[in-house]
Amino acid sequence: MSEEKKFRWVGTRPIRPDGIDKVTGRANYGADFALPGMLWGKVLRSPHAHARIVSIDTEKARTLEGVRAVITAQDLPDLFSEKARAQGGHHDMNDLAQNVMARGRVLYHGHALAAVAAVSSEIADRALGLIEVEYEPLPHVLDIEAATAEGGPLIHEDRVTQGVEASGPSNIAKRVEMGHGDTEEGFAEADIVIEREFTTSPVHQGYIEPHACLAQSASDGRTTLWCSSQGHFAMRDYTARLLGMDLSLLQVIPAEIGGGFGGKTTIYLEPLAVLLSRKAGRPVKMVMSREEVFRASGPVLGTRIKLKLGVRSDGVFTAGEATLHYEGGAFGGSSVMAGCMTVFAPYAFPHVRSIGYDVMVNKPKGAAYRAPGAPMAAFALETVVDEVAARLEVDPVDLRLRNAVKEGTLASFGPRYKRIGCVETLEALRDHPHYSAPLAANQGRGVALGFWFNAGLQSSAGVNLNPDGTVTVLSGNPDIGGSRASLAMMAAEEFGIHYDRVEVVVADTHSIGYTDVTGGSRVTFATGMAVIDAAAEVMRQLRERAAAVWEVDAEKVLWVDGEARLEGDDEREPLSLEKLARDAGRTGGPISGRAALTARGVGMGFGAHICDVEVDKETGRVEVVRYTAVQDAGRAIHPSYVEGQMQGGAVQGIGWALNEEYVFDADGKLENPGFLDYRIPVASDVPMIDTVIVEVPNPNHPYGVRGVGEVPIVPPIPAVVNAVHAATGVRYRDLPLSPPRVLKGMATPDAA
Amino acid sequence: MSEEKKFRWVGTRPIRPDGIDKVTGRANYGADFALPGMLWGKVLRSPHAHARIVSIDTEKARTLEGVRAVITAQDLPDLFSEKARAQGGHHDMNDLAQNVMARGRVLYHGHALAAVAAVSSEIADRALGLIEVEYEPLPHVLDIEAATAEGGPLIHEDRVTQGVEASGPSNIAKRVEMGHGDTEEGFAEADIVIEREFTTSPVHQGYIEPHACLAQSASDGRTTLWCSSQGHFAMRDYTARLLGMDLSLLQVIPAEIGGGFGGKTTIYLEPLAVLLSRKAGRPVKMVMSREEVFRASGPVLGTRIKLKLGVRSDGVFTAGEATLHYEGGAFGGSSVMAGCMTVFAPYAFPHVRSIGYDVMVNKPKGAAYRAPGAPMAAFALETVVDEVAARLEVDPVDLRLRNAVKEGTLASFGPRYKRIGCVETLEALRDHPHYSAPLAANQGRGVALGFWFNAGLQSSAGVNLNPDGTVTVLSGNPDIGGSRASLAMMAAEEFGIHYDRVEVVVADTHSIGYTDVTGGSRVTFATGMAVIDAAAEVMRQLRERAAAVWEVDAEKVLWVDGEARLEGDDEREPLSLEKLARDAGRTGGPISGRAALTARGVGMGFGAHICDVEVDKETGRVEVVRYTAVQDAGRAIHPSYVEGQMQGGAVQGIGWALNEEYVFDADGKLENPGFLDYRIPVASDVPMIDTVIVEVPNPNHPYGVRGVGEVPIVPPIPAVVNAVHAATGVRYRDLPLSPPRVLKGMATPDAA
Repeated sequence: MSEEKKFRWVGTRPIRPDGIDKVTGRANYGADFALPGMLWGKVLRSPHAHARIVSIDTEKARTLEGVRAVITAQDLPDLFSEKARAQGGHHDMNDLAQNVMARGRVLYHGHALAAVAAVSSEIADRALGLIEVEYEPLPHVLDIEAATAEGGPLIHEDRVTQGVEASGPSNIAKRVEMGHGDTEEGFAEADIVIEREFTTSPVHQGYIEPHACLAQSASDGRTTLWCSSQGHFAMRDYTARLLGMDLSLLQVIPAEIGGGFGGKTTIYLEPLAVLLSRKAGRPVKMVMSREEVFRASGPVLGTRIKLKLGVRSDGVFTAGEATLHYEGGAFGGSSVMAGCMTVFAPYAFPHVRSIGYDVMVNKPKGAAYRAPGAPMAAFALETVVDEVAARLEVDPVDLRLRNAVKEGTLASFGPRYKRIGCVETLEALRDHPHYSAPLAANQGRGVALGFWFNAGLQSSAGVNLNPDGTVTVLSGNPDIGGSRASLAMMAAEEFGIHYDRVEVVVADTHSIGYTDVTGGSRVTFATGMAVIDAAAEVMRQLRERAAAVWEVDAEKVLWVDGEARLEGDDEREPLSLEKLARDAGRTGGPISGRAALTARGVGMGFGAHICDVEVDKETGRVEVVRYTAVQDAGRAIHPSYVEGQMQGGAVQGIGWALNEEYVFDADGKLENPGFLDYRIPVASDVPMIDTVIVEVPNPNHPYGVRGVGEVPIVPPIPAVVNAVHAATGVRYRDLPLSPPRVLKGMATPDAA
Repeated sequence: MSEEKKFRWVGTRPIRPDGIDKVTGRANYGADFALPGMLWGKVLRSPHAHARIVSIDTEKARTLEGVRAVITAQDLPDLFSEKARAQGGHHDMNDLAQNVMARGRVLYHGHALAAVAAVSSEIADRALGLIEVEYEPLPHVLDIEAATAEGGPLIHEDRVTQGVEASGPSNIAKRVEMGHGDTEEGFAEADIVIEREFTTSPVHQGYIEPHACLAQSASDGRTTLWCSSQGHFAMRDYTARLLGMDLSLLQVIPAEIGGGFGGKTTIYLEPLAVLLSRKAGRPVKMVMSREEVFRASGPVLGTRIKLKLGVRSDGVFTAGEATLHYEGGAFGGSSVMAGCMTVFAPYAFPHVRSIGYDVMVNKPKGAAYRAPGAPMAAFALETVVDEVAARLEVDPVDLRLRNAVKEGTLASFGPRYKRIGCVETLEALRDHPHYSAPLAANQGRGVALGFWFNAGLQSSAGVNLNPDGTVTVLSGNPDIGGSRASLAMMAAEEFGIHYDRVEVVVADTHSIGYTDVTGGSRVTFATGMAVIDAAAEVMRQLRERAAAVWEVDAEKVLWVDGEARLEGDDEREPLSLEKLARDAGRTGGPISGRAALTARGVGMGFGAHICDVEVDKETGRVEVVRYTAVQDAGRAIHPSYVEGQMQGGAVQGIGWALNEEYVFDADGKLENPGFLDYRIPVASDVPMIDTVIVEVPNPNHPYGVRGVGEVPIVPPIPAVVNAVHAATGVRYRDLPLSPPRVLKGMATPDAA
């Protein structure tokens, strides 16, 4: 990468600006804000998976000393149910409103149906106990099988299947289909056709910080909301729309975020806190317990995928076909569309088709989780590819390379690929010493390839030049993966100044233009472009100021290494950023710039992982003993954070593959709503995750950035499962590979 | 004012956006912020007016349980004393540093010399009592006479008089002189020459909210400071410079401000709170007591003015000469320069001269107070003018009109006046029914004219268009006189949308470009222009988006009444702001604008007041029974707030004239540091202040705005004093006209 030489900051590893804050506890997370006179809000949740609410009597709760407000769905404006009726029962905002506070029926165990605000957390808890609810239990459906069974209970009587003409009421919220060619023809051309079925269990993103917010609402409607989220603009927009407020009257101030992974892109407590505050005339703080997070925030639910792959004896894929059923929870809205789009994305197919069903079940409304929908799809495809490689007795990486997509390939989801690094990533994996390292007894090695789109979306940025020549950069994105650092580095690079002279600030919804969520691996890419544009605007003004001082045309002034220089003039003393900043008041006023964009030219991403496991044949325990993640980052602005994303994604995928699952009882009650029983991997559970950053620059970004945050959760499940197969000879097709399941599989290989 | 018709919002009186917050207590002032783990900071203050600090022993305080940090001047970097020495003892930042924390010597009673941070306010107080200080008292000077006496004590051994060549050490910090013509010649041409001497006592701005701040400083230097001030950028800049910090590492978040009037444009507690927080590793909150505000924040101190006026028998002024001594406190820095500039400003003089002396005394460092330096100067000039009118037996308003400045007049302070409304203001006063209303027994009427420059300075503004078409306007100025409303009205006017769709936000130092203080009556003028520019930038983008939709040139698109219209096309449906905002993500991204400027074209302001008093001849109590304030506002964006400024200024001037004064004992200890003994006028002390807004638009502002906040404190003192003369026949020349002084004056008129 000789071209990297030209960068002073891009590609280096400076200290992250928010590090000290976060390590010392100075950083304020969602639950850290307090205001004088603040009340504590708590939510009453359904003990039933499905029931009609016959009555709610809040009288005793309201009159308890110390209680200042009690709300139910009656207190939320009913703005969207008309629209939902007109759309066959579907309307996203109506679903959101009903999820935030049940109206008429509770649809899952943990569904909110009332909330209180009291002077202490204890009194609020007591008040919840005094709310008298009469329920009429209704039959529930807890999985895809039950939900799609002919004549079974309907979660919503009025809902039809979107994407199916003349559908009657159904628990299938949506059907999607995509592909190209004629798969029948493709399978006919194949020498080998393998068809398998896979299931995955509901898992939670497992962010450490529970949902938390503090709302203060005045009688004129002006409201301030402090909360932890992946996007305070999304929190503002959802909350304001649900409550029928002008956006300008709701200021959302972002807290630091203790993990989100897609799960903090929607609202739960926020509108309740605002309503309670409005009713009580006092600030209201609400913090979910861990149990509430598990029961009532949005996990990714269970899936069932049937996948069929046709391959010629020379290893060329002739056809792929997949049917994906994804549970979306009580309102639908699963990521099955993305599952359909990604399932065959890494490979070239002359004939390919995927059909998806978004299935409603009496479980919490699902939310996004890092590359939503893709890991389960990759699990299906990549374990079948592994089976094909074994059947053909070819190296599994060679098989993948033979079929890997490249620039110009027609993607299974429609467009032709632009410049991508799928092949380069696979080659780097193949050439890594890990791939050919020896294995010990009871060990096995698996590889897998993963794809994610990455997103662009809307970003705004501001750059303010301070009178001492330091630079403040405004972003509208909560910093999750180190974007303060990456944005500061790009700004420092643009201005040609020291990284320490740039401070990046996550500005609130009043202080910066609209910005979409921190998600879709988009911030360094899209917000980075906005920062670069805003910096260019500031440098334009700086050149103008210098031109005025020198009495020349602004076009004659160059901006080089943090100073204005007069083109072709060696006599004139350059004007430094510091000097121009200091003199700004006299030369025309403060200097600042802004930029906003809907980012185009997203660089799609590929990752390939190698996993070595050791299986304890007596207990069925699988231990990951070595792991290497390879990924095309386009360009790693701050390689440490790219590596961190790769490591974090790999660990989450390992957890998903081996341990994590929601365990519901027959009544739809989650039995393991805590980190003791829902076990995410901790440091001692995984080896050091080795990383290799491949750099195939995205030609549409000034520094070549692609997204990096989501790709690395896509390959781990199949990499682990393929490794377990290598160690045990068993092809597992149901997650997680918990010790009992592994043992069972080894005992009855065909049944696994 | 027929042209007003064209405005939809400018000139109307909508509800102020911060009204509910401020009335209900939701608004957060300086003392309202709290953080987890917060400590309380307190300041140890000097009991001497002047003393050498022999030693400070903080050991007992530091080891008191609950104390987390103790600081003295040793903990502040000494960054400016070298520069001060090089400049003959003067350096503004060195003065500021020494005022914030005494170094070596205490220079006034109340001077800070140590500070502590403890887990409670009570423990902090106890810790202050445990700090052992050994003082060596030094001789002090408490007034102009003592300070300028030959061979008297020097406050600073190393200070020379700026503006005087080869000055030796002196208590006169600065001498200034200005004028034009030859006053000797002018007085020779005069038929009447009157020379009088005037004194005023120190007064305090009397803001209701004491200084307060909360600082949180991390070990990497990153610091957040919440404080109430007239300008958070000034707080940032002073604090950062004093502590040697990069501006980008200090985020100052503005609180609402409970009054400032010039007194909250500098720092006292802020750097101490930052240092204590840095040392303790915890947030530190500091709040002054009322007593501390009086003793140690910046009042306007005493003045002595000798003024000589030459007038021809036809009433034309031939010459003016004034010598002004203004106390600046322990470091100098009085507003004597502005006194010199304003003293003769309302009238045309062929020959005029003023000489000012900035005098150091062992009193707190003076600060600005609404039209700094002008009220005392107007007191001198306008009472002499009144005396001239009486001597010439002409109407005092006619006399003023004969000499009033107008466009083109050479101002006494140098330039020629541009378009001003001095004559129009006097005419409006003359034509007001109040001026010819009958008076009762023991009543008298006085009039006076006042001038203030108004300021421009630097302002930044941002305009963010929200996806629902509401508009958020960012200002860097704390809202004191209703600028949220006036800026929102101008933005609504520009966009052609409803006022309620615009929300104005006071953004912190990280979130908007550099902006000078809310002071100099400049915000609606200068920041208003920045808002108008930023709105224009947004409308430019809106027209571009519409042009893209219509596939026409952007020049063909007009922005009228909140929507884009295609020039000369009546077929095409206009595109509303709402629609363009909603579609912004698809048409190119979020829409926002920014602007920054150093405002030019300030519109100078004149006010003329009529005051009726009734004097109780037995007690000497003066009651203001009727009061009318007339002022040229240029254009009143929100007339209620202009009227409010006029009323507030008048009331403060009345208090200054009649009641307010600092009473020091012989040791330099302030004897009345509280609102019981330092009595500002309350509602029951004054009549309704009638107001007349004159509108002579400032041609350099899009809506014609001049400043309005400061002018109205300039005329009240002479208006009151002239009224008292009318009622009593006594010309009082020393303030305040407290009952004993009024009685004494009536008893011995010549001595008054």
